[in-house]
Amino acid sequence: MHEPSLDILGIGNAIVDVLARAEDNFLDARGLDKGGMRLVGPEEAESLYAAMGPGIESSGGSAGNTCAVAAALGARVGFLGKVADDVLGQVFAHDIRAAGVHFPTAPLRGRAPTARCLILVTPDAQRTMNTFLGACVEFSAADVAETEVARAKVVYLEGYLFDPPAAQAAFYEAARLAHVHGRQVALSLSDAFCVDRHRHAFRKFVREETDILFANETELLSLYETDDYAAAVELVRGDVAFAALTRSEQGSVIVAGDTTLTVDAVPTKVVDTTGAGDAYAAGFLAAFTRGLDLAACGRWGAIAAAEVISHVGARPQADLKALIGGR
Amino acid sequence: MHEPSLDILGIGNAIVDVLARAEDNFLDARGLDKGGMRLVGPEEAESLYAAMGPGIESSGGSAGNTCAVAAALGARVGFLGKVADDVLGQVFAHDIRAAGVHFPTAPLRGRAPTARCLILVTPDAQRTMNTFLGACVEFSAADVAETEVARAKVVYLEGYLFDPPAAQAAFYEAARLAHVHGRQVALSLSDAFCVDRHRHAFRKFVREETDILFANETELLSLYETDDYAAAVELVRGDVAFAALTRSEQGSVIVAGDTTLTVDAVPTKVVDTTGAGDAYAAGFLAAFTRGLDLAACGRWGAIAAAEVISHVGARPQADLKALIGGR
Repeated sequence: MHEPSLDILGIGNAIVDVLARAEDNFLDARGLDKGGMRLVGPEEAESLYAAMGPGIESSGGSAGNTCAVAAALGARVGFLGKVADDVLGQVFAHDIRAAGVHFPTAPLRGRAPTARCLILVTPDAQRTMNTFLGACVEFSAADVAETEVARAKVVYLEGYLFDPPAAQAAFYEAARLAHVHGRQVALSLSDAFCVDRHRHAFRKFVREETDILFANETELLSLYETDDYAAAVELVRGDVAFAALTRSEQGSVIVAGDTTLTVDAVPTKVVDTTGAGDAYAAGFLAAFTRGLDLAACGRWGAIAAAEVISHVGARPQADLKALIGGR
Repeated sequence: MHEPSLDILGIGNAIVDVLARAEDNFLDARGLDKGGMRLVGPEEAESLYAAMGPGIESSGGSAGNTCAVAAALGARVGFLGKVADDVLGQVFAHDIRAAGVHFPTAPLRGRAPTARCLILVTPDAQRTMNTFLGACVEFSAADVAETEVARAKVVYLEGYLFDPPAAQAAFYEAARLAHVHGRQVALSLSDAFCVDRHRHAFRKFVREETDILFANETELLSLYETDDYAAAVELVRGDVAFAALTRSEQGSVIVAGDTTLTVDAVPTKVVDTTGAGDAYAAGFLAAFTRGLDLAACGRWGAIAAAEVISHVGARPQADLKALIGGR
């Protein structure tokens, strides 16, 4: 087994975000569930865009965001995900490479366009996401390059990838290859509705393939179909080696065997919660793959999340290394 | 003469901004003049983009920004400018319409792409702009719809429009039509280097066609080829009915006939100065076309500018009407 030359390899939907402010009654009138992510087709994406306020475009995607943040923290990072050969695909590829992330996946040519996520940010700083998957549905097991998986300490998978059918197979292929090469598999549950859509598949994947699980409260409760958080924590303790459970302003709980560690959130003015969980996972994994203890992993996660929610957009704008170093 | 149904008609380059943070040595290595705007061709745009950090895309253009801010302040606003029939053109059109601005110009088909401006924001919050004009060079006098000019109290022209040759003719046509219909002509000098490139044409246009002039210190000094600010102020007093002269954190000076009025800046944490002058002009004109006094015009300008420089990007993110009302 070679020494790993990457710390983290993210695999996920390659998406460009379009962020706009919206009032609550805009969501109500369209029956949108605040805080969730739902999939939309091209026509609905177009009609929703026409009705939305002025937007800000920036590269997104859950695992893509995690990769960009982890790279900003000094981790060696790669990303696999499918864009199209169009302007937004160029934007995505530019941004993730400019963030220092190795991005080898070939773009899709002459078929569906690059995915976009229309994100409505309400005055309470919550985000409601409407994703048109576009080219992402073509990401398949064939795109999971064994050499990339083999050279990363941790392969990190976003739960959203359970939505495109071909990507589920890619997910399992990535986990299989990671374990063949003695690497670890991390999974983010991404979204309670996504867990709802694929609960059986998630439970199986968590139990059989996952070493490190990231989940917020509603995702964890949805996974185990319970409203008893303490019970869900004990269930996840039995399923995975490490679980990093985020609880918004209450910080996070890290569960590892007999250990249970509570980590405070870093106080900040919350402007837009888009990417909070992605950034937390990035901080955690950047510290974890550096060999730091679990308290440091949680602290790095909390610092990265606080930076990302303090401005519009899911990728860091401040110097994260300095924020870590300053504490 | 009909009652005007628009307060402001902006005419300018229709541009999508790509903003990225950059260190000073990045500018130095490429010989870029900090704070300025220069024109680049498609190849240089591509190579600079490849070297830049991760970007945030948002609709821009000097007059386009002014229109979006003025509409956010409750003014009735139209905009004329040329995008292409591509994704960035759709983004520009969506954003300006979503801001409440009437935008009737037909997109260019099958020729140059939508213009983009690569904006490097240094740690001192200054912005250095590299503009690929694309479809904007096709904006011509034929695009200046007489019905639109005739129905706006003020036609607002950005100095940058002197760069594309066909647009200069459009500029003069807009001014001619405005005065035929008894409307006022406002001009922003935009940029000291732009004034340098076209000084003779600017001097003539200011003296003969301009009712309201917007300029910062370096632009005004460049226009009159002097380093004596007080002398330049007296020269502009003789040339135009109203001059609104911005001085960064020192606020602005409004000159109108015998009147000279000093207006304080609104203190704020400066994150990105992109669009400061555009926002000031918007606030001034929104108040001016509402019939408010010059002190209010300057105050509205200062409030709008403070909002825009407090975050990344040139279009407002807060509720500007509330900011005005709260004072």
